[in-house]
Amino acid sequence: MYSFRNDYSEGAHPSVLKALIDTNLEQTPGYGTDRYCEEARALIREKIAVPDADVHFLVGGTQVNLVACAAFLRPFEAVIAPESGHPLIHETGALEATGHRVLSAPSRDGKLRPEAVAALCRAHSSEHMVRPRMLYLSDSSELGTAYTKEELSALHNTCKEYQLYSYLDGARLGCGMVSSTAPLSWTDLGETLDAFTIGGTKNGLLFGEALVITNDALKADFRSHMKQRGALLAKGRLLGVQFRAILENDLYLENARHANALAQHLQAGIEALGYSMLLPSPTNQIFPIFPNDLLERLCSLYEYEVQQPMDEQSTCIRLVTSWATPPEAVEQFLDDLARLRAI
Amino acid sequence: MYSFRNDYSEGAHPSVLKALIDTNLEQTPGYGTDRYCEEARALIREKIAVPDADVHFLVGGTQVNLVACAAFLRPFEAVIAPESGHPLIHETGALEATGHRVLSAPSRDGKLRPEAVAALCRAHSSEHMVRPRMLYLSDSSELGTAYTKEELSALHNTCKEYQLYSYLDGARLGCGMVSSTAPLSWTDLGETLDAFTIGGTKNGLLFGEALVITNDALKADFRSHMKQRGALLAKGRLLGVQFRAILENDLYLENARHANALAQHLQAGIEALGYSMLLPSPTNQIFPIFPNDLLERLCSLYEYEVQQPMDEQSTCIRLVTSWATPPEAVEQFLDDLARLRAI
Amino acid sequence: MYSFRNDYSEGAHPSVLKALIDTNLEQTPGYGTDRYCEEARALIREKIAVPDADVHFLVGGTQVNLVACAAFLRPFEAVIAPESGHPLIHETGALEATGHRVLSAPSRDGKLRPEAVAALCRAHSSEHMVRPRMLYLSDSSELGTAYTKEELSALHNTCKEYQLYSYLDGARLGCGMVSSTAPLSWTDLGETLDAFTIGGTKNGLLFGEALVITNDALKADFRSHMKQRGALLAKGRLLGVQFRAILENDLYLENARHANALAQHLQAGIEALGYSMLLPSPTNQIFPIFPNDLLERLCSLYEYEVQQPMDEQSTCIRLVTSWATPPEAVEQFLDDLARLRAI
Amino acid sequence: MYSFRNDYSEGAHPSVLKALIDTNLEQTPGYGTDRYCEEARALIREKIAVPDADVHFLVGGTQVNLVACAAFLRPFEAVIAPESGHPLIHETGALEATGHRVLSAPSRDGKLRPEAVAALCRAHSSEHMVRPRMLYLSDSSELGTAYTKEELSALHNTCKEYQLYSYLDGARLGCGMVSSTAPLSWTDLGETLDAFTIGGTKNGLLFGEALVITNDALKADFRSHMKQRGALLAKGRLLGVQFRAILENDLYLENARHANALAQHLQAGIEALGYSMLLPSPTNQIFPIFPNDLLERLCSLYEYEVQQPMDEQSTCIRLVTSWATPPEAVEQFLDDLARLRAI
Repeated sequence: MYSFRNDYSEGAHPSVLKALIDTNLEQTPGYGTDRYCEEARALIREKIAVPDADVHFLVGGTQVNLVACAAFLRPFEAVIAPESGHPLIHETGALEATGHRVLSAPSRDGKLRPEAVAALCRAHSSEHMVRPRMLYLSDSSELGTAYTKEELSALHNTCKEYQLYSYLDGARLGCGMVSSTAPLSWTDLGETLDAFTIGGTKNGLLFGEALVITNDALKADFRSHMKQRGALLAKGRLLGVQFRAILENDLYLENARHANALAQHLQAGIEALGYSMLLPSPTNQIFPIFPNDLLERLCSLYEYEVQQPMDEQSTCIRLVTSWATPPEAVEQFLDDLARLRAI
Repeated sequence: MYSFRNDYSEGAHPSVLKALIDTNLEQTPGYGTDRYCEEARALIREKIAVPDADVHFLVGGTQVNLVACAAFLRPFEAVIAPESGHPLIHETGALEATGHRVLSAPSRDGKLRPEAVAALCRAHSSEHMVRPRMLYLSDSSELGTAYTKEELSALHNTCKEYQLYSYLDGARLGCGMVSSTAPLSWTDLGETLDAFTIGGTKNGLLFGEALVITNDALKADFRSHMKQRGALLAKGRLLGVQFRAILENDLYLENARHANALAQHLQAGIEALGYSMLLPSPTNQIFPIFPNDLLERLCSLYEYEVQQPMDEQSTCIRLVTSWATPPEAVEQFLDDLARLRAI
Repeated sequence: MYSFRNDYSEGAHPSVLKALIDTNLEQTPGYGTDRYCEEARALIREKIAVPDADVHFLVGGTQVNLVACAAFLRPFEAVIAPESGHPLIHETGALEATGHRVLSAPSRDGKLRPEAVAALCRAHSSEHMVRPRMLYLSDSSELGTAYTKEELSALHNTCKEYQLYSYLDGARLGCGMVSSTAPLSWTDLGETLDAFTIGGTKNGLLFGEALVITNDALKADFRSHMKQRGALLAKGRLLGVQFRAILENDLYLENARHANALAQHLQAGIEALGYSMLLPSPTNQIFPIFPNDLLERLCSLYEYEVQQPMDEQSTCIRLVTSWATPPEAVEQFLDDLARLRAI
Repeated sequence: MYSFRNDYSEGAHPSVLKALIDTNLEQTPGYGTDRYCEEARALIREKIAVPDADVHFLVGGTQVNLVACAAFLRPFEAVIAPESGHPLIHETGALEATGHRVLSAPSRDGKLRPEAVAALCRAHSSEHMVRPRMLYLSDSSELGTAYTKEELSALHNTCKEYQLYSYLDGARLGCGMVSSTAPLSWTDLGETLDAFTIGGTKNGLLFGEALVITNDALKADFRSHMKQRGALLAKGRLLGVQFRAILENDLYLENARHANALAQHLQAGIEALGYSMLLPSPTNQIFPIFPNDLLERLCSLYEYEVQQPMDEQSTCIRLVTSWATPPEAVEQFLDDLARLRAI
C-alpha cells in the first residue's frame, strides 16, 4: 500500500546517505564543531548572502521551534502564529512548556497577514497582558500555501512597527521556495526574516533542521540554549555532512521541485476528475475533498491523513509527495481514482 | 472624583479590619497553620457541606490560578477558558509560565458552555496535541454574568465525560452567588466543582482568596506547590483572621448583596435614561454603552474602565460597585448622567 | 507559652497598623500605581541616594526572590548562593521552578566570599554548563551574620570581574544594617548592589518586601514579570501605605535596633550561663547549643526552631527576637534557663 | 592525530549502517510507530524479561534525561545525583529548565551510595523544601566506575524506603554491563530499576538512546511528554532500525567488550610505565595522571579531554575507547608514551 501520508516516510536521498557512508569512520569533534558543519554553515551564509549569519543544526522541527522560543523571548513575551500553525496544533504545547503563550491569529490559508498581527499587537497593550514579540511563520505552510516575497516584506515592516521578530519555520522551505505562485530566493530569506529554518527531514535528509539567525540581537549563547533543551547532537557532524551534501549542488531545491511537480500533477489530475480542493496549493501538500464512500475504497489502496470532515458526505484528505515519491505512484493514484470513481 | 473603576479600590470592611486589629499582637505559628486559619477552614467546610475539603488561603487571584494550574496538571495538559477568561487576558501569561496552554473557547457572555468544551476535547485527540484537562470558570464572570446551578451541573457532567477537572475562579463569587438570575448556595459549589476559590479581595478583605479543593485527586502536596510559587504567606494568620471575620456571620454574602443591589440600580437607571448595555449583568459589574461625547464629560466626574469601542460614536464602559460603594455615589452618578445627557 | 520561633509571629507595628486604618476607606488605583506607593518609593530613593532606582513592592520573600530570578536571568544562567541560603533550603525549589539552577557555594557562616564565587565561575566555563550570573546574598543571613561594607564592596568587584549581578535578600535587612559588627548605611546598599530587598514582613509590617533595582540592565518590564508570577497585589496601596509608615520616621531601623538589642542581651545572658553558640551572631537570630535534657524542659515553656543536632547529647536551637518582643520575655527566658540549668 | 577524546567521534558500526542502508527507501509510519521500533522494543523486553516494559527511543542523552525528569516528577520533587553526575555538570541545567532541583550527593567515584541518598532524604523533611523523588544513576559512571548488582539492589531498597524512583542513565550501559568488576545481566536491570536507558550513541549507533520504563506508575502518556520536549523523532524508524541491528545479535555487548578490553589494556600499559590513575576504572574511560611537560608533547599526537589538574606539575586526563577504536591505536599510544617518557 503506497503512502501519501507524509514527506518523511522514507530515509535519506541517496546522495545524502552516500555522504554519511563516506564519512562514517572518520573521527571528528562533537556537538557541531567539526569541519562538515563549518562547511555547511559557509554554504548557507553564501547562499543567503549574510556573511555573519549564525547557523545551528538541530535534529527536529518541534525541537528547533521550542529552542528558538526559549532563547529569543523573555518570559512574558508571546508568539503570534496563524490559527493552523504547527505550534498551536501539533507540538503538544511545546512552546508553552518553555513558558510562553502562543497567540492565535485568524487565518484561512495558513499564512499570517500584517493586519491580523497588528490587531493582536494593539489588543495587547498593558502590563497585565502578554506582549507579542515573535511571529511564527511557516513556508510552505501547514496548508500547502507559500509566502510571496512581497508578503514577507510586508510582515517585515509590521515587525519593525511593533518591535517583533519574524521567525520562519522552514520544515518545508524548499517546496515553498520553488512554488510557482510564491517563489523565493535564498537572499529573500536573509532580507526579510530575523531567523528561519531550512528543513532537512522532509526534503532528503535522514533528519535535521538548520536554524539561521540573521538578527544580531538573537545570536548570543544560542548553543547554551540548545544544550539545555537537549538539542545539541553529540555526533553533530551527522548534520553537517547531510546539509553539506544537500546544499552544495542545489539538491535541496531539486528535491523540492520534484515533490512539487508530482503534487501539482496530482492536484490537476484530481481536479480533472471533478473533485475540488480545500484550497489551491502550489506545493507538495494538496487537500482534495472526496465523497466518504469513495474514501472507504481508496483507503485500502493508499495511506493519507484525514484533514477534516467537510459535511456528512465528504471529507478533505491530505496527500503529500516528496523527493522520494516515484512518478508512477502518482499516475497509479490517478488511475485508481478514475476507476473507483466509476464504480 | 468617585471611582467605579473596580471593586478593590478601598481597604477592608470595618468588621474585617477590626478582626485584624484585635488579633494584631497575638503570637501565632506561620504559614497558615494557626488556629484562625483552622477556624476559617472549618467554617467553609461546614457551609459547603464537604467535611473533608482541603482549604488553602492565598493572597491574590492570579496567584491562586497559577498555583492551581501548576499543581493540578501534568505538563502536556491544558486549561479550557472562555475567550474572555482572566487567564487569557489579564494575567500576563501566568498559566503558560507554569508550562500549560490555555485553550480559548468561544463565548459571548463570559461563560463556558458544555458544547464548546466538548468540541475542544474532541479536537484534541492525539499525542501531538495538548490534552484538555481543566475548565477555568469564573463566577461571576469577567462580563458580570453568572452560572446557574443547572449550568454548573451540566458542565460537571461534561467534565465526567471527558475526564476534566472543573475549577471555578471565585474572585467575585459572592456577587455570583447572590445574583437574582443565577443564585447559588454554598452546597451547590461543593456538589458541582472539583475546586473553587472564595474571593476576598473584591468583597471586603484587604486581600485573600480561599481555595477549596473537594476532589481528592487534587489535594496532595498543595502546600508544597504554594511554597514553590511564593504563595505561602509568612503571617498566614492574616488570611485566616480575615476569612473568619467575613464568613462567620454571613458578611460575605451581605457585602455581595450590597454591591449587586447598587449595580442593578445603576443599570436600571442608565437604561431608563435610554442607554443600552453590552449585555445584561445580574451582578456588580455593568457594561453601559455611551456616546463618546458624553464620555468626554463623564470622565471628568467619574473613574471607570473602558471595556471596548462599539463603533465610531460610542463606547462600552465598565462600572463596578462593591461592599464599599455608598448608595449616594450611585444616585449622584444617575443625576449627573441625566444632566450631562441633557446638554 | 512565649515564642522565639520567628520574627513574623505577630501582626504589624502599631504605627503601621494605624496607617492602614487611617487610609482604609480611601479609593486608590490598583496594582501599586497609587500615591502611597509613589511616596514610599520616593523615600527609598532618597535614603539610598539613587534617584533613578526602580522600586517595586511585593508581598513575600520567596515571591520576590523568584520574580527577580525569572526577570533578571536568561534560561541557562544560574544563581550562586551560600550553602545555607534560603533558596537552597527553604523555598521548595522556587528558583528552579523558574528554570534556573542555584549553585551552592561553601560557606560556614551564611555569607558568600569572593573566592568561593570566583571558584564557581571558573569551574563553569563551557556551553555544556550553566553560567553563573547572579549572586544571592542575604543580610542579615540565615545564620544571623551580616556583611560589612568592605565585604559587599569586595563582592561587587568580583561581580564586575565575572559579569555577575549582585542581589541581596533583605528579609532581615534592618537587623543587618544596625548590627554592631557590620553596620551598613542606606547609601552603602545603593553603591554595592544591583538589586536588593527591604524586608517588611519581619520588621514591623503585616507583610511586604520592597525590591530596589539600581542596575539599569535589570529594570525593564519588571511589572510584567511580577504580574506573570502572581506578585502584583491588587490593592497595591496596602504595601505603599505600610512602607511609607515605616520609612518616613526611621521606624524601620528603630525596630531592628530593638530586635538586635534583645537578641544580643539574650545571647550574652546565655553565654554567661555557660552555653556556647553555633556561631556568634550580631543580629536578631541567635543559635545557642543546649543539652538535650535541658531542651526537653525548655520546650514546654518556649517555642523555638531546632537548628541542628550537634552530637548525641546536645542540639543547636534558634531564638529570634523582633520589633514586637517585650524585654520581659527575654529576662524571663534567662531566668527560666538559669533555673532549669540548676535542676 | 588520533583522538581518545570520546566514544562518539565516529559514525555507526558497519552493521548498523548497513541496516539503515537496507531500509532506506522503505515507507514507514512516523514517530516510532513502525515495525522496526516494535521489533526493537520486543527484543529489549525479552532481554530484560519484563514483558510489559514500555520502551521509547530518543535521540540523545540530555534529551532523554530531561524528558524523564519532566514526565516522572511533580513540580516540587527533586532528583538526587552524585556530585559528578552528568545533569549536575554537563547538561547546562537541562533538568532545572524543566523546573526541578538536582540535589548533589557526595561521591568520590561517580556512584550513589544508599547512605548518601538516605541522608538527603532525611534532610528534606518539610513542605518548605524540595522532596527528593528520583535517583539519577549512571552506569558506567562519568568516572568510568560501574555498579554491581548488589549495589543496585541496595539502592533499590533505599528507594522503597524513601519512596524514590531509580533512574539509570545508560549512555555507557554496555561498558558497565560487561565490566570485569561489576558485571550486570539484562535481567538485573529490569529487577532493580524503575527506568533506565540503553545508550546507543556511544556504542555503535549513529545516535539513539532507548528508554525502558518498568514501573507502571511512570508509564502514562510518556509519548506526549516526548513530543512536548521535541523528542519524538519524525523518522522514528531510524531508531528502531538501529536498535534492532545492534540488539538482535548481541552486537551491543560485543561493542562494549571491545571498548573495555582496549581501555583496560591501555590502563594496564600506562600503569606499567609508572603512571597512576585518578581512580581504577573497569570500563572504557580511564583517567591517567601525567606530568604536565609530558602532556605538552602528548597533545600534539593525541586528542583527549583534560579531566582536572592534580597539582602544579601534573594533570589527570581522560582517555576513551569505543567499538571503533583500532587496537593499533592503543599500541601506538603506549609506544609513544614510552618514547616520550624516555625523553
